[in-house]
Order: sequence, then C-alpha cells, then structure tokens
Amino acid sequence: MRTLRAYDEAMSNEALVTKLRDLLGKSAVLTDTDVTASYARDMMPLAPSGKPLAVVLPANTEQVQAVVKACAEAGVPIVPRGAGSGLSGAANAIDGCVTLSLTKLNEIVEIDPGNRLAVVQPGVVNLDFRTAVEKHGLFYPPDPSSYDWCTIGGNLSTNAGGLCCVKYGVTTDSVLGLEVVLADGSLLKTGRRTVKGVAGYDLARLFVGSEGTLGVITQATVQLKPLPQAPATLVAGFSTTEAAGEAVARVVREGLVPSLLEIMDASSIKASETYLKTDLGAGSDCQALLLGQSDAGGEVARRELAALEQICVDCGADLAYTTEDLEEGRMLLQARRVVLTALETYGLWLTDDVCVPRTRIAELIRGCEKISAEVGLRIAVVGHAGDGNMHPTIVYQPDDPDEFARAQRAFDEILEVGLSLGGTVTGEHGVGKIKREWLAREIGPVGLRVHRQIKQALDPENLFNPGSMFSMT
Amino acid sequence: MRTLRAYDEAMSNEALVTKLRDLLGKSAVLTDTDVTASYARDMMPLAPSGKPLAVVLPANTEQVQAVVKACAEAGVPIVPRGAGSGLSGAANAIDGCVTLSLTKLNEIVEIDPGNRLAVVQPGVVNLDFRTAVEKHGLFYPPDPSSYDWCTIGGNLSTNAGGLCCVKYGVTTDSVLGLEVVLADGSLLKTGRRTVKGVAGYDLARLFVGSEGTLGVITQATVQLKPLPQAPATLVAGFSTTEAAGEAVARVVREGLVPSLLEIMDASSIKASETYLKTDLGAGSDCQALLLGQSDAGGEVARRELAALEQICVDCGADLAYTTEDLEEGRMLLQARRVVLTALETYGLWLTDDVCVPRTRIAELIRGCEKISAEVGLRIAVVGHAGDGNMHPTIVYQPDDPDEFARAQRAFDEILEVGLSLGGTVTGEHGVGKIKREWLAREIGPVGLRVHRQIKQALDPENLFNPGSMFSMT
Repeated sequence: MRTLRAYDEAMSNEALVTKLRDLLGKSAVLTDTDVTASYARDMMPLAPSGKPLAVVLPANTEQVQAVVKACAEAGVPIVPRGAGSGLSGAANAIDGCVTLSLTKLNEIVEIDPGNRLAVVQPGVVNLDFRTAVEKHGLFYPPDPSSYDWCTIGGNLSTNAGGLCCVKYGVTTDSVLGLEVVLADGSLLKTGRRTVKGVAGYDLARLFVGSEGTLGVITQATVQLKPLPQAPATLVAGFSTTEAAGEAVARVVREGLVPSLLEIMDASSIKASETYLKTDLGAGSDCQALLLGQSDAGGEVARRELAALEQICVDCGADLAYTTEDLEEGRMLLQARRVVLTALETYGLWLTDDVCVPRTRIAELIRGCEKISAEVGLRIAVVGHAGDGNMHPTIVYQPDDPDEFARAQRAFDEILEVGLSLGGTVTGEHGVGKIKREWLAREIGPVGLRVHRQIKQALDPENLFNPGSMFSMT
Repeated sequence: MRTLRAYDEAMSNEALVTKLRDLLGKSAVLTDTDVTASYARDMMPLAPSGKPLAVVLPANTEQVQAVVKACAEAGVPIVPRGAGSGLSGAANAIDGCVTLSLTKLNEIVEIDPGNRLAVVQPGVVNLDFRTAVEKHGLFYPPDPSSYDWCTIGGNLSTNAGGLCCVKYGVTTDSVLGLEVVLADGSLLKTGRRTVKGVAGYDLARLFVGSEGTLGVITQATVQLKPLPQAPATLVAGFSTTEAAGEAVARVVREGLVPSLLEIMDASSIKASETYLKTDLGAGSDCQALLLGQSDAGGEVARRELAALEQICVDCGADLAYTTEDLEEGRMLLQARRVVLTALETYGLWLTDDVCVPRTRIAELIRGCEKISAEVGLRIAVVGHAGDGNMHPTIVYQPDDPDEFARAQRAFDEILEVGLSLGGTVTGEHGVGKIKREWLAREIGPVGLRVHRQIKQALDPENLFNPGSMFSMT
C-alpha cells in the first residue's frame, strides 16, 4: 500500500510539474535539485527548510493565478518567495511544496507625481523602486538593510522596516491598495488610489505582514513622500548604557522626530572599530553610541540636531559631534552599517529582533550583556533606538554544535527579556518558521484562535505557506 | 402557531432583559421606548433605524463580555454605539436589538509621555482625550468635526478622519493596540505598546473601521505626536474651480505638507458669507476658496505658507493672504467651519462623503454643480482638499417628499461621480446602513466574498451589527 501511495503521489507530482510547464513554459519551472536548493532558504540559519517539488517563476498575475489553481487542485502547498533576504525562514521551502518566486513580476507599473503614489509589482528590488521614484522628486521610505537586493513583495509580506521608521513608519504605512491572488486562484483588488478611504475592512493591511500565509501579492499601490533634504548627522558617546537609554527616552518625551536614531552597544562599537581600523572618537570607556540624523534641511535640521545634541549632553554624553557634511555623515553611519560584517571576522552571526518600549532600551542591552556572559558568546546589540527595535546579534562558531546550541539558547533568552520589558518578539523580521511558539505566547490563546479563524476563512485547505507563522492545530 | 412563537419570543426577550439587569444593575438597562428612541439613530437622515429591545450601558469590559454572552445565548443582535455622531447609520438600532452604548467606559487609563502613548477607553470624548494629553505636551491628531462630543470608540470603529489628516493621517495611523470583546464573549488583546511590531496579523487595523461588525472595542493603545506649534493661516480665492484644483495638485506634487488644506466651492462661500454677514474678501466672482495652515512654527511655517501662497498665485489666485495672527486665522477658518450651520438657514442638509485622487477635485466639484442643476437643489461642496476627501452637502426641505427623493438621488449621483474619478464612496464617514450597495460595487464580488468570509469566521452567528456595511447573503 505504502509503495502504491508513493507511486500515486509521484505520478500526481509529475502531472503537476507537467501542467505547470504547460502553463508557464519550461524555463519558468525549475526542478533540478541543485537549482531549487538555492530557492529553499532565506538568510536565517536557525530556520528549518525542505526540498521543493518545483520552483516556479510566473511572469504575470494571470500565471500566478494559474499556478495557484493548479497547486490547489493537486493539493500541493505553495511557499511564496521574494529575493530571499528574510530573517525568519518565512520563505523557506517545505518538502514537496511549490516555491513561487515573484521576482519576474518586476515592473514599476506607474508613478503618479500629482497624487504622489506609485503602482508596483512585487518583484521590483527596493533600491530600484526608490531610485525610480527619486527621479520624480519622490521618496519611498521603507529601507530594510537589504534594500539593494530585497524586493517590494517581500517587504510587503513581512511589513519591513528599516532605518527610516522612526520618522516615516514601516511598509504598511505606505500601502494604499493591493492585488492579491487568493487560495482559489481568484484575484482580490483591495484598497484604493486615494489617501483616505473607509469603504470596508482594511484588507490591504491584513495581507501586509501576513508572510505569505493568506495569499500572493501581485501588485501594490503605495503612497510616496516628498524627497527629504540631505541629512545632517550627530554622533554621541556615553560611558553608560543607561545614559544613552535616557537620552533616547528624552528625545521621545521632548517630541523630537529625527529621521534616524540608531544605537550601538560596547560590543558593536568594538567590533566596528576593529574592523574599520579606526577609533570612533568615543574613548575606550564608551559603552554606547547614538547616531542621529535630521533630513529636514537647513536651519530646521540644524535646530533639530542642536536639540538632539543638547539632550545627549544633558544625559552625560562624553562625546557629541554634529556635521552637515554629507561625506562625513556617511562615514559616521558606516560604523553602524558595518557591524554585521565586522562580526563575521569572529564567526557566524545570528541576529535577533525584538522591539521594546523606547524607555526600556538600556534594560534590553543590559539583559543581553547578562545572556552573553551566561552562554559565553559575544552578543553585539545594534538597533533602531528611535522606535525601540533592537537587533542583538549573537556570534558563534558554525563548526561547533555546542556553540550553535548556546547561540539558539541566547536567541530565545533575548526574546524572553524583550517580552518581559513589555516588548514584542519581532519588530520587523517576522515570525516565519523560527518564532511560532513565541508568537503563540505573545498573542495568547484568543489571539491565536483569531489568527487560525482568519487563515481558515481565507485559505481553508492551508495551501499558502503552511506551518509558517503559526500551525493550524 | 404565530401567536405562540410571538409569545415565546416575548418571554425570551423578557428573560434577556431580566438577565441584563442582573448583570449590569437596573439603571444600566433602558427599555422605556421614549428613552431608547434617543439611542436608536445617529446623525444621518437617510439611514433606516429600528426599535431596540433595550439599551445597555455597561461600566467595564467584564460587563461588556457578560452582555455579549447573554445576547449570544438569546440570539439577540447587538448594535454597538458611541456618542451617535456618525453619518452613515452604522450605530442605528435594528428592531429587537440590544444597543450597547460604550459611553460609560470613559476612563483615560494611562498617559505615558516617555513612550508617547496613551491607553484609553472607548467612551472618552475625543476633545477630553485631546485636552488630557495636551497637558503632557502631546497631541492626538484625529479631529472629526464632531470632536467636542464624539467618542474615541466611535472614531476607532469608523476610522475617523478630520481636518488634520493631510499631515497626520486618520485614526488607524494612531492605533498601536486594541482590546476587543469577540462574539463568544472572549477578550482579544491585540497589537502592542511598541511603535513597531510584526508578530502576527495586523488584527488591530482589521477591527479599526469595521463599524462594530466584528467585535466591541473596549480599550485602545494609541501613539501620540509632539504638540504642534500654533498655526499660521493662508486664504486664497480663485475665479475658477479648476485653478483651485490645480493649486491643490501642485501642493501635492511639490511635496508641501500643510497641517490643513480645505476647499470651499462657490455655493459654500456664498452660504458662509451670508450667514456670517461678511465678505470673505474673495470678490463676487470667486468660485473656490482654499484655506491652508502650517503648524510647523516660526520660520518653517512662514516658508511653508509662502510656498503655498506662491503656488496659489501661480495658479491664478485673485486673493492670497497669509497671517500668523491666531485670532485672525481662527476667523478665516470660521468661514469653513460654519458652512453646515449656514446651510441650515436654507433647509436640512445631507452631507455626502467621497474621496477622490487629489488631481481630480475640480472635476468632482464640477460634477456636483451639474447634479445640483439636474435635481434642482442647492449642493455646497466643502472638503479636505489636501487628501481629496470631499463633502458635497445637499440642502432640501424636510417637509417636501419630492425634494427629499431628489436629495437622495443627488446623494447617489455624487457617489457615482466619485467612483468614476477613481475615488472611493466613503473617505471617512463609513458605509453603515446607507452605502451597502455602494460598498459592494466598489469592492466587487471577490472583495465582498472576503468580507463575508472574515465576518463569518469571527462572528458566525452574525451577532454584531447585522446588516450594517454589507449583508451576509
């Protein structure tokens, strides 16, 4: 019997692949396991991944609909996928799935400067989109660190953030409307082209951040901002983490809204200084660095940075330096940007993602120091201080199973601390296949039930990304 | 048989009222029809309303849960209700329902200046909340015109807007988390206290704007903005509607973000001038007035208003005047604020609510002029030009059934024009009991199906506000 079932399944799988090839053309359906393996994972080492039956690369919405219908008929699950820059395993294949890559839907359909909006397909690379709208004097804020290779579709599915969020919000704040292929292959057009509108439920924002579990986004209408001015930059060094944390809380309390406000802990500073072979000027007892920017331009930027500087000084900063020089600003930010690369000189990194109330940042960093001592691994904390979204990054040796186990333990303990501070287990990376239990814990049994009810209502056969985010049982 | 069923129903209704009295105390369950009638309608004259079996006024979340459980058990529908300032009939009673007034849940639970957030119950009046957070130098942006008597719960349920939206967004943009009583009486806590977070579906924003059809909001965590500066004001008069429309489009295109940008058409200007017994200084051939404000303060506000003024002049404004004097600014805005009151001197008014792309405002106004001529009724257009949300207001004689019928016709034809311009049938007032067919038309059969699937998943017995927004069949 078992052999027979396996035979039936193989036949049915073969029939599905044949059908997909008929629908999309041969070159758009990949089954060579060497090739499909490169579509089976994102950038999160902790997440499990399986072997896809096939990777399909539809070229338009109709082809996505056809793929969904064919898979639904065959009972084969679909894992939608963008560039694979994710950090939660949400796009990781499961055994026997069809991985649906959206990279070929890569057209910027429309840029409408008069209404400051654009219509874009999911496969467009974030940077390409930013560059295109910039030519019209417009600005698409969401800027995850992978912006030079991640795609808009992945950004939408994870509700991606970035450095800009403190002033400009996350991906969902830019979304006006979506086109989504549903589990039966039908096409939902939801949202609108107007900046306001309350006709019906906010379905667009239900799909944003749903990590491919409810449908496949094939088009988005997004609103754009006026292009900001060139940024002026501040760097401030503190001899205690608490002083830096207090400075962030005061920035919030006093109503300053910088366009960027990043924090680096002692471990990050050290890694960065060693890597860049430079001294960030903060002195050897510097425990925390704040980097701030204003993109308001001219006198306003000067005033914003002066206010930021004053807060840092009042909170006991040993160093506080501001510059309007673009190149110098870029160099200062470089210290923040190279941290992950710098950490690679010590081993592999595993970056966590918690978001805490902005008054609790110092406590989170202290918590990470404690965990670091306990597990005996380097943990460097960098984060978007302006919105409390911290990325404690654990360094471990990949060939040492014990270190890997300790890294995993540290990863979880960081989430524990984040939750205990009134935070969330993911600020911007998502739940995916690594934080399902943590999601369940954060949202509680009623929250989990509502998630399952919505999933069941929209995807009754559990076709889309099954087992990601939460399980149905 | 029929008599027997009626008898059974009466008995069961009586039993429910008794149970509700046991749960909430006698004074919190109103059944006197003279009294309950005052809870049976909102401010929209077109919407049908029925007679509630009872009006209940729970004092806390536990009592809301108990009411929901009791009604669910008895199979009696619930219509949740705030202050009743709505303009879509969403809070209107249906025959035999329990109207659940949230006005007694009126506590501001917490104001946290360090994290710039507050926790608030639904019954708090918008103005009271604004005033309370202002004492901490904070600002809660959503400001529907009824802000001095509407409640936060109603604002959340309708995703209310106001004059501030052009710069600060609508209610949903302020929401971080919600507590919601679900159809089985369980309490969902969703969202968070952090400004970022992607743990699970964005359920909070699904409930915001769902018009009481999915659950009863009993608490909200909202983020607050820094208190803006005192506004500087501009008024500009145009001899053609198209010139004013072009000025709005240029404001958007050039990336200006005023804190207020309102438009008045010729009919509104005339009504306002007559009522205020003043000349707005725009001359007798003035066809459209723009009112703009900047709350950025000092030099920035001056620069923003100068840029706004320049655009108006470039677009052919006959009058363009700016002032930093607060009192003068208030007087200028008064012309906009009194329009509805001014129209009452001619008859009853019926205000519509469409939102169009910001490049199409002049076309919408022209469309309303045409409809006005066709139906032979005065239609005055005021609107939030900065976000394209227009409120064409039809004046009719209440004692003339024919005029009322023509007013209704005009109301629908305005929606037709709005949709044809790529707009939405409701920018901020909601669907309620008056725009169900229009919602169905705007979102299409797939959109409607998804709405029904979600409603069915969360409220399988159709307990909450049945027949509002959309029907289940």
